[in-house]
Amino acid sequence: MSILAVGSIAFDCIATPSGRVENVLGGSATYFSLAASYFTDVRVVAVVGEDFTADHENVMKKRRVDTRGIEHAPGKTFRWGGQYLENLNEAKTDFTELNVFEKFQPRIPAEFMDSEFLFLGNIHPSLQAAVRLEMNAVKLTGGDTMNFWIQGARKELVETLRLVNILLINDGEAKMLAGETSLPKAAKKVLAMGPQALVIKHGEYGATIFFREGAFGVGSHPFRAPALPIEEVKDPTGAGDSFAGGFMGYLASQGDINREVIKRALFYGGVMGSFAVERFGTERLQSLSKGEIDARFQLFRELTHLG
Amino acid sequence: MSILAVGSIAFDCIATPSGRVENVLGGSATYFSLAASYFTDVRVVAVVGEDFTADHENVMKKRRVDTRGIEHAPGKTFRWGGQYLENLNEAKTDFTELNVFEKFQPRIPAEFMDSEFLFLGNIHPSLQAAVRLEMNAVKLTGGDTMNFWIQGARKELVETLRLVNILLINDGEAKMLAGETSLPKAAKKVLAMGPQALVIKHGEYGATIFFREGAFGVGSHPFRAPALPIEEVKDPTGAGDSFAGGFMGYLASQGDINREVIKRALFYGGVMGSFAVERFGTERLQSLSKGEIDARFQLFRELTHLG
Repeated sequence: MSILAVGSIAFDCIATPSGRVENVLGGSATYFSLAASYFTDVRVVAVVGEDFTADHENVMKKRRVDTRGIEHAPGKTFRWGGQYLENLNEAKTDFTELNVFEKFQPRIPAEFMDSEFLFLGNIHPSLQAAVRLEMNAVKLTGGDTMNFWIQGARKELVETLRLVNILLINDGEAKMLAGETSLPKAAKKVLAMGPQALVIKHGEYGATIFFREGAFGVGSHPFRAPALPIEEVKDPTGAGDSFAGGFMGYLASQGDINREVIKRALFYGGVMGSFAVERFGTERLQSLSKGEIDARFQLFRELTHLG
Repeated sequence: MSILAVGSIAFDCIATPSGRVENVLGGSATYFSLAASYFTDVRVVAVVGEDFTADHENVMKKRRVDTRGIEHAPGKTFRWGGQYLENLNEAKTDFTELNVFEKFQPRIPAEFMDSEFLFLGNIHPSLQAAVRLEMNAVKLTGGDTMNFWIQGARKELVETLRLVNILLINDGEAKMLAGETSLPKAAKKVLAMGPQALVIKHGEYGATIFFREGAFGVGSHPFRAPALPIEEVKDPTGAGDSFAGGFMGYLASQGDINREVIKRALFYGGVMGSFAVERFGTERLQSLSKGEIDARFQLFRELTHLG
């Protein structure tokens, strides 16, 4: 089934211990769409400026991502600069230039209205809610958020969480959202806010999915997928969005949502996240093969499974 | 096969968000021995003071731990006080009274010399080395260490690492020992110092075992075991030693060391660590049943395994 991704497209300036790049294509919608494109049909809604060229758009088109929802606005594309020189697990933001992203009002093309799966990337919770309410055919909605909205738009975020089936956030965001230092307790509190499932991403330690009692009929036991111990993480940017793309993309490809499908989706999330960090920007996500993805899935299995 | 544990016996004063206890039986040898006792015959070498009573010793004897290697010295037993009020993942030490532990010189009873497995708890690396060199029948040696020795007795520690087959340390210790911020790179450097395998404990995220090329004939792919998402961690003290006890105890119980045995050992390490933190001190480790351990092993499997 097809999945619609709403989020940001950006040009990133990134410094890591492995090097430095300027103005590479990034943004949550970009990483998500490329990662999900290996599993299902992807449609993207985002805004770009006049500096976004056909070459940039072709990065997505080559992966058969439907880009008709990319709005071209006067001005410059969203730019972000950050570094991971001291800590590969957390970006230190150097600058944020919102540019055309500041006034982003997602407009869903009529051709996208039949999307069965929806991913609400990290934008203002009110925009997330508006998109979700507009999309009538949606069977399952995944969502992301961040500390900025948890602190600055909490009321709107809490409203939005009622419309999200699966929330994907990291450890720090889950603890902040719940006001809890214990992760399992935080998970319980977040699930009480609305989502049927909560994926907490632990960076290099993998991710855990927690379920609300009765959700999807899959039982309430959590499930954990690993991350690959990668010796040289070149660039962690987009790892979380790539994880979400692998997770949601695999779910959308299966149609039926059961416990086994969700477990595999969590593994595919980790797989796509592990590819994303091997190169700067979206480079690695642009030209993967099914064989490479399968082989890495198998590695994840060997890393965690008893005989 | 039998396992000999050398380490500390202590009285602990512990404060956590769940409460506070005074002078409860603790120490690396105590947690290790109790955890390992569910898998194999355990012998313990440690030192205690005059305040260590028959009742204290009976905690171990009830678990059939051979306590003939506990030396009773004039003076007081090692005391440690610490709290986890702000961070359950890291103890803040309130006080350390070494007492009889300060002059600890491990003496191995003749009856223990045929032990096939050896665990060198967190004591001065030179004492660890001396014990290992004295034990001729040992087939496999596990060892622990800490930041204090990595910084303060590095030369001696590096010597000791050549005598240790499997080193068990946490993320921070591995990074400090290797001088590396990437965990997989740190693992490679530590393995180059001598051990055939390195278990890195990630706290609530589980543990990963890394192998030196060719070690144990098990291949060089790492393996990762989870930790259980426990809503209320009552007291994290001793979790690492309990992990080591489950890990080494299971290895000793199997005799043959192959990849499957090592993988299961890592799971049993997590299982015993997860029990340890459910109650203050060693309470939970004193009266487990085989059924409880099996059930939790199964939970760990369900938490991580695809169908």
